[in-house]
Amino acid sequence: MNKILVANRGEIALRIMRSAKEMGIKTVAVFSEADREALHVRYADEAVCIGPAPSNQSYLLGEKIIEACKKTGADAIHPGYGFLSENAAFARLVKSAGIILIGPEPEAMEVMGNKLSAKAAALKYNIPMVPGTEEAITNVEEAKLRAIEVGFPILIKAAAGGGGKGMRIVEIPADFEEQMQLAVSEATSAFGDGSVFIERYVTSPRHIEIQVLGDTHGHIVHLFERECSIQRRHQKVIEEAPSSILSPQIRDKMGKCAVDVARSVNYTGAGTVEFILDENLDFFFLEMNTRLQVEHPVTELITGLDLVKEQIKIARGEALSYTQEELEIKGHAIELRVYAEDPKNNFLPDIGKLITYRTPKGNGVRVDDGFEEGMDIPIYYDPMIAKLITYGKDRTEAISRMIRAIEEYDITGIQSTLGFGKFVMLHDRFVSGQFDTHFVNKYFTAEVLNDQHEEEAFIAAVAALSVLKDKKGAAEKMVTDAGSNWRKNRV
Amino acid sequence: MNKILVANRGEIALRIMRSAKEMGIKTVAVFSEADREALHVRYADEAVCIGPAPSNQSYLLGEKIIEACKKTGADAIHPGYGFLSENAAFARLVKSAGIILIGPEPEAMEVMGNKLSAKAAALKYNIPMVPGTEEAITNVEEAKLRAIEVGFPILIKAAAGGGGKGMRIVEIPADFEEQMQLAVSEATSAFGDGSVFIERYVTSPRHIEIQVLGDTHGHIVHLFERECSIQRRHQKVIEEAPSSILSPQIRDKMGKCAVDVARSVNYTGAGTVEFILDENLDFFFLEMNTRLQVEHPVTELITGLDLVKEQIKIARGEALSYTQEELEIKGHAIELRVYAEDPKNNFLPDIGKLITYRTPKGNGVRVDDGFEEGMDIPIYYDPMIAKLITYGKDRTEAISRMIRAIEEYDITGIQSTLGFGKFVMLHDRFVSGQFDTHFVNKYFTAEVLNDQHEEEAFIAAVAALSVLKDKKGAAEKMVTDAGSNWRKNRV
Repeated sequence: MNKILVANRGEIALRIMRSAKEMGIKTVAVFSEADREALHVRYADEAVCIGPAPSNQSYLLGEKIIEACKKTGADAIHPGYGFLSENAAFARLVKSAGIILIGPEPEAMEVMGNKLSAKAAALKYNIPMVPGTEEAITNVEEAKLRAIEVGFPILIKAAAGGGGKGMRIVEIPADFEEQMQLAVSEATSAFGDGSVFIERYVTSPRHIEIQVLGDTHGHIVHLFERECSIQRRHQKVIEEAPSSILSPQIRDKMGKCAVDVARSVNYTGAGTVEFILDENLDFFFLEMNTRLQVEHPVTELITGLDLVKEQIKIARGEALSYTQEELEIKGHAIELRVYAEDPKNNFLPDIGKLITYRTPKGNGVRVDDGFEEGMDIPIYYDPMIAKLITYGKDRTEAISRMIRAIEEYDITGIQSTLGFGKFVMLHDRFVSGQFDTHFVNKYFTAEVLNDQHEEEAFIAAVAALSVLKDKKGAAEKMVTDAGSNWRKNRV
Repeated sequence: MNKILVANRGEIALRIMRSAKEMGIKTVAVFSEADREALHVRYADEAVCIGPAPSNQSYLLGEKIIEACKKTGADAIHPGYGFLSENAAFARLVKSAGIILIGPEPEAMEVMGNKLSAKAAALKYNIPMVPGTEEAITNVEEAKLRAIEVGFPILIKAAAGGGGKGMRIVEIPADFEEQMQLAVSEATSAFGDGSVFIERYVTSPRHIEIQVLGDTHGHIVHLFERECSIQRRHQKVIEEAPSSILSPQIRDKMGKCAVDVARSVNYTGAGTVEFILDENLDFFFLEMNTRLQVEHPVTELITGLDLVKEQIKIARGEALSYTQEELEIKGHAIELRVYAEDPKNNFLPDIGKLITYRTPKGNGVRVDDGFEEGMDIPIYYDPMIAKLITYGKDRTEAISRMIRAIEEYDITGIQSTLGFGKFVMLHDRFVSGQFDTHFVNKYFTAEVLNDQHEEEAFIAAVAALSVLKDKKGAAEKMVTDAGSNWRKNRV
């Protein structure tokens, strides 16, 4: 493998190129017209424009990407996450063009890409599943009967879904018909496939996933868990490894299940097996993501492995250089996704120019981003600005480091999830590890951030006062508003 | 401990404040008039101006610093490195003012501050010493007789010295008198003390030091070694942990010796015991530094400990929370000191404005610095801009990551040691671990960097050519000069 084309943009494109560079492999960027000035384009050894801004005219066009490989002589493609990363048809296209896809075989993508076929595969290994339908249902009457069997509350999910789309909770049988019809029509319009399935609704769920790696020699290992229960709009915003709730015994059991799920499709490369954990610490298989996850850095920090390098080595046909027994967790890592969103306005995107953009530094702080001061967050793509990851010898240190790093982070021009992140880090429920995926709905309100702001205003007022009081003598005292905009003296 | 005054500036002041902040302790900065806009001033909760730029009118004035403590209510002082950090008189002044000094007792500083009393203390524990005089000598005739006994080549060193000042190598007895006289007069003018001592000159020495921590309950542990053999002008510029040459047996033996040296003065806090390692892998005690070292981050990365937090906990009277047996090395770390110096001009300082200043990011990269784009490197202080530290699962990964990080680092406006660092990382001798403190003198010349530059010019030329060749169609190809100024499109 001499040259890798990265079929992605933003932080993940940069992150992949960094690992390739460290391995002495050349890199090719592809970019849309909106990304002409993006950092991933500048970072790559070569870059090819593949079309206009909307993803379906550039980043989602498999043929354009293969054309760019041929043009630049790239012999491998890393798809990152999102876009074409879990597209089996693209994987086949790449293969037939004689190019290596850094990812699993198309067959594995296909099976795991559909929740029902994924469940069917996993059942071969007796993986625990949330009670529910094993096959897609469209008939409302039949579905209702099954729902009553399983017991309410019930969850209706799109078979082809993800990210909470086409998902409905039904508390009582009387509401079932209406909700089922809505779910089917939502699924049809979102995924072109109205199939849904039904499962028991877990009232207080935690989202815990296991990272797996499989090589082409039949070895599969897991790299322990990530807890991703802090979500807004059914999407992850804070992740950590290890989970604050798993015992070594449950960790071991979940890890073995994840390896079995991967084995059920002869999985190769990096993948993630997602589980739901209920209030009794029973876990159930949710789905498998057949790509690198956004939150993979927390696993890198606690294991010392570079997951992109592992992916590349597997794609080159190398065997894993460690056994399950040799892997161990060291320390604790937390990731905050820094989105261009307004937490006070229901986390709606708040794109625009990064007027100030200064990232935190120091021991145990990693920032994976794709922007610099003065750049615009384009409207066409996911509004993630950066991933802020902290590492500490234990969870307490990782949390205090995250708070410190958030306070150092300086973003103006747009709203971001930084203040929200600080709120979570300081919250009793998060600190004690007693939370579930309802955390944001239960505890977060816009007012909470207003209070935070008032506290800051108070500190600023005290600062102003002590400057006034202190105008005598050569010695000078200034009190800066600790943690907010500390780098710039603003007017 | 509620509020720590940091009696230092630049990267180390920021670095200390970060740890304090993570522990919930307030911070006070002191600053000279030249540092009014410095980052450490903005980062602190409070800041006090203590005088004009030259250190002896501000950072070296103990009374001013104690006054600033009283003014702000700081109950502890962290002296960092340099300035007052190893000044026993200052330590006594602080103590008598009822303030906690985050560092060892004044007595330990005093004994270890003089090479001869340090040797005398260490001898109680049979620590190996380079053969030579055990007491200061000023009489030339007596010194020559002793030198003949020890055997040539001989090293003459100032008893109060450091950083290579007042140090002379004498190859043959005929040169002895002249060199001895020069050494005494150099030592007199540099340190106000003409005492020198004599020891066997190790032809191919490696500088290896052991980090120790002692608490106030009599526990002392070591945190393994740092190799600091890559030096220019007898001063460290690249450090790593662990050393590429130590066997576990020698590491263990050196570690035990270092703990004994610390025990000889009932050492408390963080300290470093420096050894010289000869071509037969025999090691000899050199000196002990009674403070935090510049290169402490490499130890933090391989042990997972935060050394500043450890210092603070010890100063609060807490016992170490681990035994020697629980400590282990995980991975490999390398530090490059990024100086505002011109390696092509004998590493002379090249201060001025940081016109461009962008730091590298990503997995395993840590930058400890005290500057931002647009700031000036002041002429009054040490010209270090930053410490670039990389961490990897093994030495090979740490090296490749350092090369990648150097290529990402973007500094214009002044010369720096970045290119020199890349030269070292790519050098066979460094890669194979076969080097000593003469590395720079033996292998580095200004021409080496010129060649590096030519290679870059060549790549740029190829890039320009392929742009010309490729002016057809919508697809666009640009070849960027990998690693040099990748972030900015310059005219």
